[in-house]
Amino acid sequence: MATVVTFGEAMVRLTPPGFQRLEQTTSLNVHAGGTELNTAVALARLGINVSWVSRLPVNPLGRMIANKAREHGVDVSPIIWVDDARAGVYFLEESTSPRPSQVVYDRKDSAFALLQPDEYDWAELLAGAKVFHTTGITPAVSANARIATLQAMQNANQVGITVSFDLNYRSRLWSLQSARECFLQLLPYVDILFASTGALRTFCDIGGTPEQAAEEIQRRYDTKAVALTHREEPSILRNSISSIVLADHLYSDTVHDLEIVDRLGAGDAYSAGLLYGYLNGDWQKGVSYGGVMAALKHTMVGDIPWFNIDEIEQQLQGIVGGLQR
Amino acid sequence: MATVVTFGEAMVRLTPPGFQRLEQTTSLNVHAGGTELNTAVALARLGINVSWVSRLPVNPLGRMIANKAREHGVDVSPIIWVDDARAGVYFLEESTSPRPSQVVYDRKDSAFALLQPDEYDWAELLAGAKVFHTTGITPAVSANARIATLQAMQNANQVGITVSFDLNYRSRLWSLQSARECFLQLLPYVDILFASTGALRTFCDIGGTPEQAAEEIQRRYDTKAVALTHREEPSILRNSISSIVLADHLYSDTVHDLEIVDRLGAGDAYSAGLLYGYLNGDWQKGVSYGGVMAALKHTMVGDIPWFNIDEIEQQLQGIVGGLQR
Amino acid sequence: MATVVTFGEAMVRLTPPGFQRLEQTTSLNVHAGGTELNTAVALARLGINVSWVSRLPVNPLGRMIANKAREHGVDVSPIIWVDDARAGVYFLEESTSPRPSQVVYDRKDSAFALLQPDEYDWAELLAGAKVFHTTGITPAVSANARIATLQAMQNANQVGITVSFDLNYRSRLWSLQSARECFLQLLPYVDILFASTGALRTFCDIGGTPEQAAEEIQRRYDTKAVALTHREEPSILRNSISSIVLADHLYSDTVHDLEIVDRLGAGDAYSAGLLYGYLNGDWQKGVSYGGVMAALKHTMVGDIPWFNIDEIEQQLQGIVGGLQR
Amino acid sequence: MATVVTFGEAMVRLTPPGFQRLEQTTSLNVHAGGTELNTAVALARLGINVSWVSRLPVNPLGRMIANKAREHGVDVSPIIWVDDARAGVYFLEESTSPRPSQVVYDRKDSAFALLQPDEYDWAELLAGAKVFHTTGITPAVSANARIATLQAMQNANQVGITVSFDLNYRSRLWSLQSARECFLQLLPYVDILFASTGALRTFCDIGGTPEQAAEEIQRRYDTKAVALTHREEPSILRNSISSIVLADHLYSDTVHDLEIVDRLGAGDAYSAGLLYGYLNGDWQKGVSYGGVMAALKHTMVGDIPWFNIDEIEQQLQGIVGGLQR
Amino acid sequence: MATVVTFGEAMVRLTPPGFQRLEQTTSLNVHAGGTELNTAVALARLGINVSWVSRLPVNPLGRMIANKAREHGVDVSPIIWVDDARAGVYFLEESTSPRPSQVVYDRKDSAFALLQPDEYDWAELLAGAKVFHTTGITPAVSANARIATLQAMQNANQVGITVSFDLNYRSRLWSLQSARECFLQLLPYVDILFASTGALRTFCDIGGTPEQAAEEIQRRYDTKAVALTHREEPSILRNSISSIVLADHLYSDTVHDLEIVDRLGAGDAYSAGLLYGYLNGDWQKGVSYGGVMAALKHTMVGDIPWFNIDEIEQQLQGIVGGLQR
Amino acid sequence: MATVVTFGEAMVRLTPPGFQRLEQTTSLNVHAGGTELNTAVALARLGINVSWVSRLPVNPLGRMIANKAREHGVDVSPIIWVDDARAGVYFLEESTSPRPSQVVYDRKDSAFALLQPDEYDWAELLAGAKVFHTTGITPAVSANARIATLQAMQNANQVGITVSFDLNYRSRLWSLQSARECFLQLLPYVDILFASTGALRTFCDIGGTPEQAAEEIQRRYDTKAVALTHREEPSILRNSISSIVLADHLYSDTVHDLEIVDRLGAGDAYSAGLLYGYLNGDWQKGVSYGGVMAALKHTMVGDIPWFNIDEIEQQLQGIVGGLQR
Repeated sequence: MATVVTFGEAMVRLTPPGFQRLEQTTSLNVHAGGTELNTAVALARLGINVSWVSRLPVNPLGRMIANKAREHGVDVSPIIWVDDARAGVYFLEESTSPRPSQVVYDRKDSAFALLQPDEYDWAELLAGAKVFHTTGITPAVSANARIATLQAMQNANQVGITVSFDLNYRSRLWSLQSARECFLQLLPYVDILFASTGALRTFCDIGGTPEQAAEEIQRRYDTKAVALTHREEPSILRNSISSIVLADHLYSDTVHDLEIVDRLGAGDAYSAGLLYGYLNGDWQKGVSYGGVMAALKHTMVGDIPWFNIDEIEQQLQGIVGGLQR
Repeated sequence: MATVVTFGEAMVRLTPPGFQRLEQTTSLNVHAGGTELNTAVALARLGINVSWVSRLPVNPLGRMIANKAREHGVDVSPIIWVDDARAGVYFLEESTSPRPSQVVYDRKDSAFALLQPDEYDWAELLAGAKVFHTTGITPAVSANARIATLQAMQNANQVGITVSFDLNYRSRLWSLQSARECFLQLLPYVDILFASTGALRTFCDIGGTPEQAAEEIQRRYDTKAVALTHREEPSILRNSISSIVLADHLYSDTVHDLEIVDRLGAGDAYSAGLLYGYLNGDWQKGVSYGGVMAALKHTMVGDIPWFNIDEIEQQLQGIVGGLQR
Repeated sequence: MATVVTFGEAMVRLTPPGFQRLEQTTSLNVHAGGTELNTAVALARLGINVSWVSRLPVNPLGRMIANKAREHGVDVSPIIWVDDARAGVYFLEESTSPRPSQVVYDRKDSAFALLQPDEYDWAELLAGAKVFHTTGITPAVSANARIATLQAMQNANQVGITVSFDLNYRSRLWSLQSARECFLQLLPYVDILFASTGALRTFCDIGGTPEQAAEEIQRRYDTKAVALTHREEPSILRNSISSIVLADHLYSDTVHDLEIVDRLGAGDAYSAGLLYGYLNGDWQKGVSYGGVMAALKHTMVGDIPWFNIDEIEQQLQGIVGGLQR
Repeated sequence: MATVVTFGEAMVRLTPPGFQRLEQTTSLNVHAGGTELNTAVALARLGINVSWVSRLPVNPLGRMIANKAREHGVDVSPIIWVDDARAGVYFLEESTSPRPSQVVYDRKDSAFALLQPDEYDWAELLAGAKVFHTTGITPAVSANARIATLQAMQNANQVGITVSFDLNYRSRLWSLQSARECFLQLLPYVDILFASTGALRTFCDIGGTPEQAAEEIQRRYDTKAVALTHREEPSILRNSISSIVLADHLYSDTVHDLEIVDRLGAGDAYSAGLLYGYLNGDWQKGVSYGGVMAALKHTMVGDIPWFNIDEIEQQLQGIVGGLQR
Repeated sequence: MATVVTFGEAMVRLTPPGFQRLEQTTSLNVHAGGTELNTAVALARLGINVSWVSRLPVNPLGRMIANKAREHGVDVSPIIWVDDARAGVYFLEESTSPRPSQVVYDRKDSAFALLQPDEYDWAELLAGAKVFHTTGITPAVSANARIATLQAMQNANQVGITVSFDLNYRSRLWSLQSARECFLQLLPYVDILFASTGALRTFCDIGGTPEQAAEEIQRRYDTKAVALTHREEPSILRNSISSIVLADHLYSDTVHDLEIVDRLGAGDAYSAGLLYGYLNGDWQKGVSYGGVMAALKHTMVGDIPWFNIDEIEQQLQGIVGGLQR
Repeated sequence: MATVVTFGEAMVRLTPPGFQRLEQTTSLNVHAGGTELNTAVALARLGINVSWVSRLPVNPLGRMIANKAREHGVDVSPIIWVDDARAGVYFLEESTSPRPSQVVYDRKDSAFALLQPDEYDWAELLAGAKVFHTTGITPAVSANARIATLQAMQNANQVGITVSFDLNYRSRLWSLQSARECFLQLLPYVDILFASTGALRTFCDIGGTPEQAAEEIQRRYDTKAVALTHREEPSILRNSISSIVLADHLYSDTVHDLEIVDRLGAGDAYSAGLLYGYLNGDWQKGVSYGGVMAALKHTMVGDIPWFNIDEIEQQLQGIVGGLQR
């Protein structure tokens, strides 16, 4: 029985090695990734029972994605398997300054996008869980996925399961208009909200300092916790990140300076960290874990994180140095 | 102005290296391939002016496919470029005995499949050409592609351009029933037909020896030339191939023993060889070139052939040995 | 609750790519492998609930090995995790005729070898199982591992769980003398025995035809089933395999001709196939599945198999050909 | 008919992967590169008709180089193909601070170096062109190449084709003395000159600020445009670049901060950008395009650029960010 | 006859490519490394006759390690070869900020660790040498290795051979307590000492400025030269290093800014540089060479350095730039 | 002091991986190879003191080649190092049936080809040696190399050193006519001759059975031993080899069936085996060792062999099997 249930699509990610252009490459590195799967894996690696609700094709790519989840101990039994379907694919072109990295999606009509909302028995899927987590990507995938997201949140809400939601927006999946409409529909059900100040401005018309924005969200939706993450990008390979969380009090994290190996999945790792703290009844632990986990994720290849709890603790205790031997 | 015009889809081919399973691999080798493109490249490498009519998305994968054609000197100006579309993709899992190699298609709703028949001005595309070539895969891709195939053949027929057609059937694209119906509609327009005896039996209900089958086709459709290829498969990595061609006379080729590196595109290379002979007014040269080119293709990685005319000639003259230095 | 419980060590396998010598290579391919893990994975891929009892170090290599088991759905909860220990490692040097492939073990004092027999509560580990499976490698690893093997078999025996045992001998781990002494101690507990005729001759002094040897084993130990596998090795890359099984009747398999990609784990896949048939109450199915699974394993990279039940069925129905598309 | 004609050698470039030393590596990455080819490709990718005049051996390496040009749409019909010749090769050893990257040339007696000036019919090669472009490397390759360079410039000059010349000096090809003598001979024919202030000081004894140096060149040679590029190198992997162009007015570019993946070909991309602006009758566009194209080139692997016009425009409009998805 | 004799273990180093986690990787890059071997190679590449005293197993890994030494001209005849032994192995996980790189040792009971002190005839091994060099790692490997280290130093001392010692401490091999006890026993025999100020504080209770610490060591042990190296680590990939040496006078080096490719072996390269200066009777040359060699090592892959004397000289003369061509 | 002295060029060998065409590849595997170096390494690996006389450029490629010799214990002190020179390079394109593998040489004007005969003091180079070995490739490289070859043989002859010569002909280096003239000049100095019957027919006009041809050579030139090797090539990847040696008696070897990984250097390994037997005073041992060593070489990547004496002995004793573990 899972303590945390996440819901969303995972795709096969194909990346040209060594900063090559996609147009140029003769090979592609293969990973699996999907924001809710990434969070699920991060939690599983910290010892939390977590299940991942998704939909995959009965073919080698579908099996590969599920294998990657299972490899880290995520419960994949809620996956719905479909014949004659396709796995979502995305191509990631990594870059350096001044060229931005770039994602090319090929996820239309994927097994997940074609889900039928009534395939999911949320009462059963959520039974015994403490947290339901999803993100702004899931409802962006298809109209049906949006319906399923709403149903899942409503179900969780009714039985008192904490609803966690990352308000991330993918401009290549839907318009600002559609996203806004959907997000405003979902926010009343959300207990823990992850966002950037930019997203709050865009989708909720909330300005001001991060603290003010968090307070306004809390005021409007009676949100249990609002986590605002912030990224500085002086160059493509060098960023720094920080965050604040407004729950019962205001919590904040130190700034983490990063030499980026792979930034995808960093926000998902942050979410896992905060949820870990929440499940342990310690928001400050959540903020600190989230920050370290997001920072560590930048040093790891693939969307899915490979950290362990002792590494996170070492970072928090400042036992680091350049080389441990 | 192209002497040969080919028409069909090319896709990105993704192959796990070293006989790995698709489910298992952490990288994929990238090639472009498509049966009519393969034939076009083979002809271009022999010095023939050849253009390739296709449809590709304006994205890195679409550009990659066109680049591969252009790299060998194929004229890509007839390609129609479309925004917001996807490139067809296929995964090739290579194997050894007793497991068959396997193709997993992800080509549905590709830029090519979504073509509009009236986008192609065949009169202009075929102007000045001597041969129009396509295969049984093109009409299998979508209903519109089938219409375009028929229109192209009719156009070619009207202005006396030789229509070349490879009757190959892809069971993962359409039913036997649909294929049969389509092939019977197209065959009256075909001047040069490539097939296996099995295909003639399945789609035309023609039995008997290869020679008898070829004669029956010629009798029914007044086909200029019928090329029947034959493959023996004692093991996955060791095959042998041979062919006969019935044109004004019956021509035949020696048997080629093969150690297979990559068998995809071998039939397409054969077609190019026969068309080369035809353009040179020498059917026997066509049969011999076709056989050698198909044999050589098996030793080369990717669907697209990399042979040169001097290598073909050396094979024909028996100047080979195990190592040239 | 697992239907099948396997017990043994798995190691990190390091293989130079492309037939390079170990002394020469600048990179090593990484796999995990261990005969009882291989069998567990093969069963899990057929949908059987299977758990793997083992012992691993708390370090990245130990985690990697467990991940590989979990990836395929094997229950890894029975693994005992130990600090300050090492993972067994073995180097595989692949070759072609006339040079044999070669395994260099570096597994001494591994976490598994240093196991304490009383760490394992077999009553609990075997609860609800139908089959306990191990091989002649497990007791060869250390004196304690031999004690644990005996205890496990005795426990299984007492509660009526079928004991399955593969009599394979590793000359680089112990002497013939030690192996013989151990095997003769274990055989009375064995219900399903896997062996070669050579092994029966060496360890049990049983000669004659395979059928006679199987009968003699059954007579001596009242063994439920004796599976004798046979391998012909005309060259390193080309072998053929076959088997007979003597259970209530004598069952036999066709000969499978192989182009070898990686022969490690083939015997383990065979065991899984026979056990699958046994669990389905159908010895002939077991023999046939075992033969196909062993044959397919030769075409796959790594010790761990990646086949699916539909592929096995296709082989049995002869739906193969050289290329499926 | 080409709008721009470039003239020069391209070589096979062999690079150890992952910052390995050449002495150490067990594999080499293969690219084709040559300064005038690089500029030709950059222009072709912007939609300009461009031909490349060169000389290559009839062997796999010669064909590979021509393929790379053709892949991007460069017209390779002016290439002279020679038997029994060799392709120039160069080894690139990439490094980090404080060790400089290094080029080891093996280009002596290449097919290009052995060119015969009268093989080139410049009247025909330049017919219809607007720009002829070459660099200081071409005359450095051999005495005959120097003669051919002069003849080409004179021909272009006579018929009013704009002569574009990059005054780059390769110390491993010839002495300062020889270069100076040659450059002073060529400069009177040059309409668009690319240089660094250092080169103007060394070869033309012109000092002062960049603006003063450009003015002095323009005064002496009545040059249509003088482009001076400037590079700051705080470390091997982090540089910044900027430029000014003196044409009818003085134009300047912003500073581009770079995280270098591969700096070769950046100057060639700059030249293409300026020529693109010139062909569009817009010097400021040329300076801006040149700067962005040079900057983008640093993020791409190989000498040959892989950018597209939309990417250049996005940079100019500041639509970048660290990750586009 | 060797001028410098070094003593210590070398291991097979296995590194996941591309910053991958060890738990995640599917391949490992193979190098050989060991601090005293690294120093030996650095000296051999400068033309010094150097021998390396070690102990290796008669197997492919042992041979590989010796090959790597021999490849650079190190005399490997003093190696003792043992059957049925294992080579030490270590896994290096490379990282970026904020995660430290990490070494996982698997060197217990290696051929070297199991050495017998009386196997080494130091009188013979040191005959004709000017310098004996070892480090704090050698006595940490095993009790016997500690005895052998002491015996070697005593032997060298008696016959007037300069004893060089790098006081480096490996926390994963022994306790601070054990290291301290051993180091204090060895220091009286040491003529040239390499250390950090931190190590002097920890093991010798010496504080103050680097100069004061060096003076105190010299006062206590009458050490010929004390070299103190210092590293600044603003991030994992960007460090700077500097050093001072107190011999007859105080010598110092400039600060070297580094973009790190592989920092292992940098200290060993420094030692080689200082010893090179010492053998040339020029401490300042030693300091300067040491600094440049350590800096250059950071740009090279593997523990073993690949620089040449001309590259070192170019750095000293400031002839560098970002690209030499 | 070397027991065997070999003389010849070694080159950098560049091979596309995975049977790719040279025109197609994006990477090249790097090896060093040269027939006399290959033989030297084979002897060194059997424990024979062997030196290699050659000429290399002072650059990374020259050093790489020497490193590879030194790595196996070959004495490289006789190498003459030259500035401003180039290393010979050759490209190897590996294939399968029916396409032959192919060597593309780029070795013209290499450091070795430009040798000056009087640079070599043969009296000193050969001092103390028992065997001088070279092949028909060395005199083919340049006129000066031919002079040096003759001088070396004459020197060896005078002081009673056995002259060993492999009569191999490279059609891409010189004409049959030139080769014949040279070979007939050298043969009187040769004591141990390696040849095929085809070569004896072509260059010496000797027909008949192998035994008759060997006898005729011995009669004409009073050759101590004539070794005739024979290769059957049913396919590119499957060959078999055998040999006879006529010395005091006629010796012969069994037939070795081969699955070819890399056939280059097999003849050189054979020569080493025969010389090893000769140095041990046992021609039969020489024939047997030669046959096994040539056979084993086919299973190893690169021109340079990596076998050990125990592997050779195991083959001779028939202890092989498909997998040793």
